[in-house]
Amino acid sequence: MLDNIEKDLLEKVSGLKDKPKGAYNIRLNSKAIDRSSSSNIAITKKEDKDGIDIRIAPGTKKEVCYIPVIMDKAGITECVYNDFYIGDDCDVTIVAGCGIHNCGKADSEHDGIHTFYIGKNSKVKYLEKHYGSGDGEGKRIMNPTTIVEMDENSYMEMETTQIRGINSTKRITKGTVGKNSTLIVKEKLLTHGQQFAESDFEVNLDGENSHSNIISRAVAQDKSKQIFIAKIYGNNKCHGHSECDAIIMDEANISAIPEIKANHPESNLIHEAAIGKIAGEQLIKLMSLGLTEKEAENQIINGFLK
Amino acid sequence: MLDNIEKDLLEKVSGLKDKPKGAYNIRLNSKAIDRSSSSNIAITKKEDKDGIDIRIAPGTKKEVCYIPVIMDKAGITECVYNDFYIGDDCDVTIVAGCGIHNCGKADSEHDGIHTFYIGKNSKVKYLEKHYGSGDGEGKRIMNPTTIVEMDENSYMEMETTQIRGINSTKRITKGTVGKNSTLIVKEKLLTHGQQFAESDFEVNLDGENSHSNIISRAVAQDKSKQIFIAKIYGNNKCHGHSECDAIIMDEANISAIPEIKANHPESNLIHEAAIGKIAGEQLIKLMSLGLTEKEAENQIINGFLK
Repeated sequence: MLDNIEKDLLEKVSGLKDKPKGAYNIRLNSKAIDRSSSSNIAITKKEDKDGIDIRIAPGTKKEVCYIPVIMDKAGITECVYNDFYIGDDCDVTIVAGCGIHNCGKADSEHDGIHTFYIGKNSKVKYLEKHYGSGDGEGKRIMNPTTIVEMDENSYMEMETTQIRGINSTKRITKGTVGKNSTLIVKEKLLTHGQQFAESDFEVNLDGENSHSNIISRAVAQDKSKQIFIAKIYGNNKCHGHSECDAIIMDEANISAIPEIKANHPESNLIHEAAIGKIAGEQLIKLMSLGLTEKEAENQIINGFLK
Repeated sequence: MLDNIEKDLLEKVSGLKDKPKGAYNIRLNSKAIDRSSSSNIAITKKEDKDGIDIRIAPGTKKEVCYIPVIMDKAGITECVYNDFYIGDDCDVTIVAGCGIHNCGKADSEHDGIHTFYIGKNSKVKYLEKHYGSGDGEGKRIMNPTTIVEMDENSYMEMETTQIRGINSTKRITKGTVGKNSTLIVKEKLLTHGQQFAESDFEVNLDGENSHSNIISRAVAQDKSKQIFIAKIYGNNKCHGHSECDAIIMDEANISAIPEIKANHPESNLIHEAAIGKIAGEQLIKLMSLGLTEKEAENQIINGFLK
């Protein structure tokens, strides 16, 4: 079914070497090539637009749902809507991710709009890896939008990773956090060449004792450009924190523009950001152990993004 | 010459009880009522618009120049341009500041545009206090703009203070920092009632080994609103840091929107911001020493803004 390039993309973005057990939807070049529901997780195709609905029954525990997207044809532009309805009292993991291999002249673009409705007392882990390969002139473009609406006592942890390979990305994440609920976002990003990446977070801490933590680690190499925007609005008694740590190299360019806004006297909001180059002493130390400058740099970057 | 209200305003914003020695310009209700130059500092009226030129001779050391503005008539709106030409190798202090007493129905507004050209190896301390009093319906409005252009090896420290009394302020500060030069800004702000305050900083670290540190401490009480914006652009090998610490009380509203942008791989840029209420334990501790809740709050706020 999948050729070697496609298998490689699938593994890179989802960790899958084979069909997974349980519920999944595998999308290749704008078509679902395989789909399965489980007794607790129903995946159905949307009738009105491109995309799927994922309905997770209340009380579903320890299940994993895979919905990877792979593209290896140049010239595809797609916009896909995936909606996740997660019942009360769940504990589930969702593995999304997109891999694009482009050897052609035309650009390939995947725009995914993922909306999560998370029920009371539910816990969701959401993993999203972006990966690009291929030596065509055509660009690999991904614009993911993630919208999260969290009911009471819920917990969501998002881990998003884009290490190399994507020419242009604009990532939008919007969260509305209910009473006693927590939204954690961990983002890792490495750009190089002429790549462009923008991450734009907006979190509304609406519920009493709501909490959010946005942690971004970024490396910009060569002539790449990155923009990090994180807005946290405290609309109730809440804790919000964002941090952006970035390493700048070569002729790259990084901006960090966080915003915290306290609309309630019991909002506690903090942000931190730091942009700098790799410390000279760190490089020298590793080079004194026998590494070349390039190897030492790579080791530091890998540690930073781990 | 000055009545008691005017004397009080003058002392509040400049610390002056009498005519100072040296160079000064005292402005009352849109007119210079007294002006003096010293052998090193020449103050002259502008011909083309409202305002003065302050020319400080190279090598001037340990001199203080006072240019306070006071207003106690309602209904005045003025826009004043003051330009400071500071020669090389100086070490001077400039005391600006504006006090408005408004007992009338019409608003009183002072907009001051101060531009500093700081010569090589020069050190400037700039103090700016804003103060308002009077129980009229008319608003007390101040919109100061400060533009700083710093040549090599220069150092400027700005201290701006606005504790109560100003209904509306939009403060703009722009700095361009040359080679081996340092710009430090310390801002203290307390708003209450329906007051509005916006601080907007933009610093371009253009010179090699340039440095800037922007430190803001803010308290917002009642229904007041504050916006803090600090943009630091690293365009060379440089260090930039901004921090905004804010206490929110009652139904106030505070936003902090810093931006750091590294346009050079040897830019080191950091920002931090925190908004929160007074810690409960601190209040309880002071109250256990016999203070009322209000007294305890005031003591904490005074310490925070000191």
